[in-house]
Parts: sequence; structure tokens; C-alpha cells
Amino acid sequence: MKANSKLNHSASHLLAATILKLYPNTKLAIGPSIEEGFYYDFEFEKPLVEADLLKIEKLMKKLAEQGYEMKSVPEKNYSFDNQPYKKELYDQFKKEGKNITFYSFIHPKTKEVLFTDLCAGNHIENSKEIKYFKLLSLAGAYWRGDSKNTMLTRIYGTCWETKDELEKYLNILEERKERDHRKIGKELGIFTLNPLAGQGFPIWLEDGMKIHNAIRDYVLKLDKKFGFTEVLTPHFGEKKLYEISGHWNHYQDTMFKPIEMDNELLIARPMTCPHHIILYNATRHSYRDLPVRYSEQSRLYRYEKSGALSGLERVRGMDLTEGHVFVRKDQIKSEFRHLYTMILKALKDFNIEIDHISLSLRDPKDTEKFFNDDNMWNKAENDLRDVLKELNVEYKEFIGEAAFYGPKVDFQVKTVLNKIITMSTLQLDFLLPSRFEMKYVDENESIQTPVLIHRGLIGTYERFIAILLEQTKGVLPYWLSPRQVTIIPISDELNDYCKTLYDEFLDLDINVNLDIRNERINKKIREAQLQKTKYIVVIGKQELENKMLAVREYGSEKTTICTKEKFLEKLNNLKRGLK
Amino acid sequence: MKANSKLNHSASHLLAATILKLYPNTKLAIGPSIEEGFYYDFEFEKPLVEADLLKIEKLMKKLAEQGYEMKSVPEKNYSFDNQPYKKELYDQFKKEGKNITFYSFIHPKTKEVLFTDLCAGNHIENSKEIKYFKLLSLAGAYWRGDSKNTMLTRIYGTCWETKDELEKYLNILEERKERDHRKIGKELGIFTLNPLAGQGFPIWLEDGMKIHNAIRDYVLKLDKKFGFTEVLTPHFGEKKLYEISGHWNHYQDTMFKPIEMDNELLIARPMTCPHHIILYNATRHSYRDLPVRYSEQSRLYRYEKSGALSGLERVRGMDLTEGHVFVRKDQIKSEFRHLYTMILKALKDFNIEIDHISLSLRDPKDTEKFFNDDNMWNKAENDLRDVLKELNVEYKEFIGEAAFYGPKVDFQVKTVLNKIITMSTLQLDFLLPSRFEMKYVDENESIQTPVLIHRGLIGTYERFIAILLEQTKGVLPYWLSPRQVTIIPISDELNDYCKTLYDEFLDLDINVNLDIRNERINKKIREAQLQKTKYIVVIGKQELENKMLAVREYGSEKTTICTKEKFLEKLNNLKRGLK
Repeated sequence: MKANSKLNHSASHLLAATILKLYPNTKLAIGPSIEEGFYYDFEFEKPLVEADLLKIEKLMKKLAEQGYEMKSVPEKNYSFDNQPYKKELYDQFKKEGKNITFYSFIHPKTKEVLFTDLCAGNHIENSKEIKYFKLLSLAGAYWRGDSKNTMLTRIYGTCWETKDELEKYLNILEERKERDHRKIGKELGIFTLNPLAGQGFPIWLEDGMKIHNAIRDYVLKLDKKFGFTEVLTPHFGEKKLYEISGHWNHYQDTMFKPIEMDNELLIARPMTCPHHIILYNATRHSYRDLPVRYSEQSRLYRYEKSGALSGLERVRGMDLTEGHVFVRKDQIKSEFRHLYTMILKALKDFNIEIDHISLSLRDPKDTEKFFNDDNMWNKAENDLRDVLKELNVEYKEFIGEAAFYGPKVDFQVKTVLNKIITMSTLQLDFLLPSRFEMKYVDENESIQTPVLIHRGLIGTYERFIAILLEQTKGVLPYWLSPRQVTIIPISDELNDYCKTLYDEFLDLDINVNLDIRNERINKKIREAQLQKTKYIVVIGKQELENKMLAVREYGSEKTTICTKEKFLEKLNNLKRGLK
Repeated sequence: MKANSKLNHSASHLLAATILKLYPNTKLAIGPSIEEGFYYDFEFEKPLVEADLLKIEKLMKKLAEQGYEMKSVPEKNYSFDNQPYKKELYDQFKKEGKNITFYSFIHPKTKEVLFTDLCAGNHIENSKEIKYFKLLSLAGAYWRGDSKNTMLTRIYGTCWETKDELEKYLNILEERKERDHRKIGKELGIFTLNPLAGQGFPIWLEDGMKIHNAIRDYVLKLDKKFGFTEVLTPHFGEKKLYEISGHWNHYQDTMFKPIEMDNELLIARPMTCPHHIILYNATRHSYRDLPVRYSEQSRLYRYEKSGALSGLERVRGMDLTEGHVFVRKDQIKSEFRHLYTMILKALKDFNIEIDHISLSLRDPKDTEKFFNDDNMWNKAENDLRDVLKELNVEYKEFIGEAAFYGPKVDFQVKTVLNKIITMSTLQLDFLLPSRFEMKYVDENESIQTPVLIHRGLIGTYERFIAILLEQTKGVLPYWLSPRQVTIIPISDELNDYCKTLYDEFLDLDINVNLDIRNERINKKIREAQLQKTKYIVVIGKQELENKMLAVREYGSEKTTICTKEKFLEKLNNLKRGLK
């Protein structure tokens, strides 16, 4: 949801006014509106706690109801006393020759000035409009975002035009909290983080690995089916490799620093394309061999500022399902169709809905950004457009959004939190093949350069699993679930039998757990449910004697009694449904 | 085989003598005997080629037959003219105050001096003894092994006491060449190397990945069966982690250099134990939770000098099947038994024969090397000894061979090249748990420190696959084979049917290939055989009509006609045999 920026900007002023009433010695920094609300940064004399927000909110409401009007006022109306941050800003703007303005909340009748702030404007007219708002949270924030400066206290709030909108937004926040993959990931034991292992390097726990492996098995099989050759290339590369590819010049800020070793400079690789290219280049290729398709479950490393790191979404070490296809120019269309079908299948199998397809084209006027070869661009863009039409795909065109090396087709997905993200991508690349002097011999024995298609299937395991957890609130479909079956004996004397069942299920590659802890049955069942176990199998004496299973499916209160064979058949069908 | 060092040392003198006869302006460096022969380093005026070796060998034989005697001679008999390397050695020895000696081949009758060399002695009496020898190869070698110095030409040779011995040794060399995993790995497309990806970082190709994945699937399943929890921890670690563990102090020469990142120093990890320990430490453990068993297919990095790197055997980046088990002291014996059984099963399944088991103990007198706690050592060593006895294992004890942190049991294997290597290992460790302040709460609510058992199952994938290729000459057992089935149609019109078969086999997780190239059938069959394909399935019209397969097993000349169902059942049994 997008909040009204005028309204929220004014709300931030009102918050500052309230803060000065309650804590007169507070120093003010900045208070902008943001997409879903506003914030204001303060330096308090004494630290604030979350509980204070209610009190502040109450006074804000009262002040808002007074009906102050927002007016532009002359500079002389403002005092910089005890406001060093405002003074710093003022001096800077002055130096930069900026137009400096001030705004006040003034009561229309009493002419009382509630609050004046250094501000560029864009406000509502009357504080009465600030009606449906809420202060949300406290956070630390460095002055000017620089960790060398003082740590300030940031208060986040949100303000809406109607009660309904506010409620809707607060519900979204609740939902977001509940779906937060960091929360679910912790509760379900999917992953953890530890500063000694390095920031931004997630540690995958047992159940996380089970999801990881299920995705991996799926992707490997799909890749084989679509003619990819699985390889495993080194996680490091010589600096020269990235100099040739151009990554070193363009992206070294987001790369790990090189390690010196003998006469080499090794870099923890930020992507795999150059590795697959040198692999291609190591053998001679005829036009008959193309397309050559390499796939890899690639470990990659990217430098992110420590402040930007978050859960599985922003990390420094990640595993990417990569694919690089080398084709002749006359194969672009057919290969694109092939890969398009592949991506559709994968997204369908993972139950991920495409919001829209975007075709990103170059801007012909921007000769600086885009690789300079009109014929090539025209052919490639027309090829992509043709295939999309042939496939009856509705798509949107975006001029100027192509990669610098060629046009691309992105598969855009709307997450449950209403964020649009690129899930899959197909990118044509003319540049790397020429930089690496890639070759094949055509039917006339002359040397040609292949075209590279970068295929992004589901992105990184890290981001993909974060999205899966978010979409499903941790209740993954059976085939991806790390807790497919949990076996619980009613009493200790059934442990041995349950262990036999457990071994049998394990042999069938079922993600099975056996709970023989010394705890009450109901507690065990409850815990298995909290772990989103798909099937809880309870074994009592009766089940042992009749060779039956008492099975409870996730989300159902009903227990079904069935034979082991029938149950296993059901599980097998759930898995087979995928193929 | 171990060659006679006196004999080989003298043969190296004879080689130098011959070289000076044939190429009088050659400068001599050094010429020692080595385990299986000898070499001599020369600086030639013009480069030598392999073909020259025969000519040199011929003259050596002739000279040897003259019956020169090897005698110690005074310094004045030697001339340093045109011998700068000898002069450098002489000056150095002089400076170091070493005893300097010279030896000559002198004819007993004519008193002719064939050759004199600066040399520490240890020779046979008469050149006639140099009878059964062969010059083997040419290689480049830097003077004093330093790449800053001149590159010399090294001639390798070997000399034996009897004709039989020489023949036997030459056969071994042939066998070794044929079994060299670098040769097999290249022929079968298992792996490759590329300087742009960094030295010592193997690139796994399609068939290599199939072997990799088969081993991985096996290990993951075995680990689950034996109660291990699979995790995936970061491939980097904070330097502090290795300072706590002590690795930074002891092994930094074999570690990658740290990368600076924000306030961290990240190291590409040389081992996983510290990662598993911090994972253990992240939660509270009760005595009831132990043993805690973590397993990981770990990527590790170790620095090796570039000159030492070789194929898959000496690398800088490797994948290790790791296991770390945390136990109470009273669980050492039972856990050891558990892990021992596990290792036996794995080695049996991979068809690897144990040569002997070694129990490595501390040397109680060496209080410097070994962790200082008599009770602990006594208990641990007795525990291991007891279990080995209970299991009726024949083992050898090695005093002083324990790790500094505890005693260990190694599973020693003799390779087909007669090398003894440690394949698997179980090591008790008291040190790391105390360094990382590991804890569990015992039945009396008091805090205890667990014991760590390092479990090495099959070592690194790199070394293990090198050994498998060497042992089998690339003819892997069915379940590990990357070429389980190759389908070959007799004519183009059968391609579609064969493609259907191929897809069906692929769906059953069979490593299947389809050869529909425009080549002759016999060529395709021959190539599939060279690729060590386990089953070649040829499809003609008859097979299509009768829904039968014409199957040829590797190593057999016979073609069997059978139904698809029967064939698939056979393959399934071959795989199931493992479980």
C-alpha cells in the first residue's frame, strides 16, 4: 500500500511537535514521509522505550484535534537553539545555494505557534486531517546514515486518510510479521546466523537442508530433462577472468576482495558465467553441437554492506540455480521457446503464479549504455517478440530496461506481501561471447561466435526458500516439506515397532521423524503440528496388532485409520504428482 | 618397489659421464638416487628430446660394461671449469664446514678416469653392476627447486639388480600410467583444470558430477540412517574462530589469506569442526540429547604450493564428507562402536578393502606435543582398545602417533599402486570442546563438557574419486557409473522411439545417454565401450516391433535380447543391492 505523502509528512511534523512538548530538550534531526508512512529521527536525553509510544500517540491525537493550520513562515520565526542537526542542514543548504523554507503549525484562532521546522514543504492544510495514524516502532539510526556519527532514535509511524485504510494497513503489518521468513525460519529450525561464521552467511539446519535437497533434486532432474549438462566449477576465479568479462570494472564494489596466492589473485566469485564460458572454450565446437547447455548449483559471493544484510534475503554467500546456454543465432527462437516452457513448468510445480511477463528492450537513443550493433539488437528483440507472440504470452514492453549486453524477458511474481519481484529471467548476451572470443565452426567451416542465454530459474536458494516460507507460512507442500511424517508411539513398549516403521519410511526417502521422548502424547502431537508436520502417525497397541496406522493430516482434526500400504501409496502419489 | 640406492646413485654418475661424452659443454647440477631410481639435472646447450634418451642409454650400457671402478679421489682431481652449479654447491658446503668428497669412475687396468663428481659417496664398486636400467623421461626442474632460478633439464632413470626386477618395475610403471586418474579422468570426461579458474581447483564435468551425486546420495542416506543431522555451514569463517580453535596459530601456512570486510577478517575455511561447534553452542543441551551428530558435505580450502598441485589428489579447493559427534564421556565406547560399524559398511559398499586398522596413542613421555591430562588419555585409550577387542578387530598400536588432542583409529587401505593411505578415521578430541567452552547439563543439573569425535568416512570427493578411478581403471560399479545405459538406434526412423525410451529411463534416475549422431553404429558402440558404458542398448526395427531390447553388458561380446521390464528389473536390483 502507498500512503499519502503530504499527510504523512505533516504527521511527522506533528510527532516532532509532540516530542518537544513531552521531552523539551530533545534534538531534532530529519522527519520525511516514506512509502507506507513516516519517521522522525531524534536525539533524546534519556532513552525511549516502546511503551512510551502510546503516551506520545495520545498527545499527538489531542494536538491534531485542535486544528492547527500548516503555514509557510519566514526564517526569523525559527530558532536554532539546541538544534545542532538542523543547524548543520541549514548551513549545508545555504552553502549549496538551495532555497530554504520553514513551516509552522499555527492555530487559526489563537495564532498559537505549535511547532516550526526547517522543511521543503508539501503538507496538508489542517492538523485535523491527521486522524487515522499509529506510531509503530523505535529503531536506531545514525545521523546521515553514517556509522561514524551519533546513533539517533528513529520513531516510525503511519497515517491514512480513512479508518478502513489504517486498519487494512495494520492487518498487512500483522500478516507480514507472521509471514516473516526470519520468524518462520527460526521457529521451524530452517536456518540460523552466527557472527563467528561471518555476517550474512546463513547456516542451514537439518530441516532447512531437507528443503534445500528437495529443491536441488527437483532442479537437477528438470535440468537433465531439458538437456542441461550439470557441472561444478570452482567457487573462486582468477582476477583476470573478471577483467575480461568486465565485471571487475563494473561491479568490484559488490565483489569480495582478491586473495593473493603465489602469482595469482583469487576472487570468491560473484557469478558463474565466466566459468561456464572458459569451460565451453576448452573444447572445439561444431554448429551441430549447439545448443550447449551448462547448469550448476553455484555458490556465489557478493559484498553487501553489513547494515543491508537481512535473514535469507540479503546475504553475502548464496547458492544459485544457474544455467547458461550457448546457441547459434538461428537457434535463438527455438531455444527461447524451450527455456520458456521449462520456466513455466518449474514455477507451476512450485505453485508460484506469474503476475506478468516483461520484455526489456534497449533505448536506441542511449548509445552509451547499450552494446552498439543495431542489426543484432533488432534481430534479437524481434526474435523475442515473435516467440512471445507465438506462445500467446501477454507481456509488457519496457524500453531502456534491457541489460547492456542484450534484451531480456523477466518473469515477474507478486509476493503475498504485494511486492513485485523478478523470479525467473532469460537474457540474451552478445557481449561476453565476443569478449571471451567464443567460437564454433559453421557448416561452411568458417568460425562464428555463439550467443549466450543466461537462464535464471528460481534465483538463489536463499531468496527462494524465504519466499516459499512467506507464501506458505511454513506449511510447505508435501514434496518440499521437511516434516512429511512424524511417528509417535502411545507407550514405550511400542518404540521398537515404531523404530522399524521409521527405518522403512527412511529407506523410501520420506522425511520422517520419530518422537520417542519421554513426554505426553498430546504434547508430542501439538509440537508436531507446530512444526507443520504433514502426517502424524500415532501407534497404539491396537495399531500394532492390526498392522494399521492412525494418521492425522495437517490442518485436519480427524484421525484416519489405514493400512501402511495404503498410506505409503498416498505419499507416493503426492510425490509423483510432480513429475 | 624400493630400488637399491647405491646402485642408482652410481647409475646417476654414469648418466652424467655419458652426457659429457655426448654433449661436452653441458653444465651439471645434482644427481641423487630416489625411491624408485635416480635422476640428474643438467643445463644443456641445446634442448634434448625424449628420442635422445635411447642414444644416451645405449652409450651408458657400453661404458658400464667396461668395468670402471668407483673410487674416492682427492679434491685436486676435480675441475670446476664450466661447472658453476658444482662450484656454488662446493662454496656453500665449504662455508657450512661440511666434509667435501669426490668420486671417480676409474678403469682398473688403463687407469683411465671416465668421470669425477662432487659427491657424498655411497656407491657400488664396479660399473658392471649397472646392468638392468632404463632412462625413463625428461622433465623441467628449477635449480634448487626455486622458480626464480634457471630451468634445468632433469633426466629420470631407474636401475635394478636383476632383469626380473627391472621388468616388474617397468610393468608397474605401465600399470600406473594406465590407472592414472588424470589420464582416465580426461578420457572419460570426469574433470578438467583451467588456469583462469585458479590453479588446483578442479572443474567437474557432466560424468564427474554423476559420480559425485551418486556418492553424495549414498552418503546422505547413510548419515541419516546412522542418526546424523545434515547441516550446511558457511564456507568462510571469522579469523577469531580459528584463533580460538588454535588452527590459526598452528596451520596458517596452509590456510588461505584472510579477506578484510567491514570490521571482519574472513577466511575461506580449512575445516568445518569450528563451524559445527558454534552450531552446537547456539542451543542448550541436556545429557539426554547426546550424542549430537552433525554431518556436512563441506567445501574446504587449503593452500598448497602450486608446484605440489596434481589432478584431484593435491588441490586447493575440495569437498569433504564430514561428521562431528558430540558425546558424553560414558558414551565414547558405544558411539565408537556405532561409527565403526558405519565406516565398515561404507567401505564394503564402495568395495574398498581395509589393509589394517591402526590405533594411534600418545607418547606419555612427550608432554609437549600431547594435551596434558593423564586420566583422560588413559580412559580414552582404554576405551578404544576395549571396543576394538570387543569387535574382534585386529589392529596395530602406534605410540606417539595420536593427534595432539586425543587418540585415534585409522582405517588404512592399500591402493592398487601399493600405497598405504588412510581412508577413514575416528578421532577423539578433548581439546576443542574445552577451547570453545562447550557444555551440556548432566542428570544432576551440573555443567559438563562433551567429547568430540571427528569422523572421516571416505575423505574428500576429489581424492576418493581419484582412488575409485585408479582401482577400477574407470570401470565403476553400476551404481556409481555415470554411463549406466546408452541407447543407440539402428536408423534415424527409430530416433523417436529411442527418445521415448531415454525419457523413461531418465525418469527412473538412470544415468542414460542417447546417441543419435549421424555416425556408423559400430563407431557408436565402440565409443560407448571406451566410455565404459555398463549397458549398451541397440534398437532396430525388430526390437521396436517386438518391444524388446538388444542389450550388451560391458566386458561381454554377447548381445542379449530381453523385455524392457526384465532389463529395468535387473538394473533396479543392481542398485538395490546396495541398501
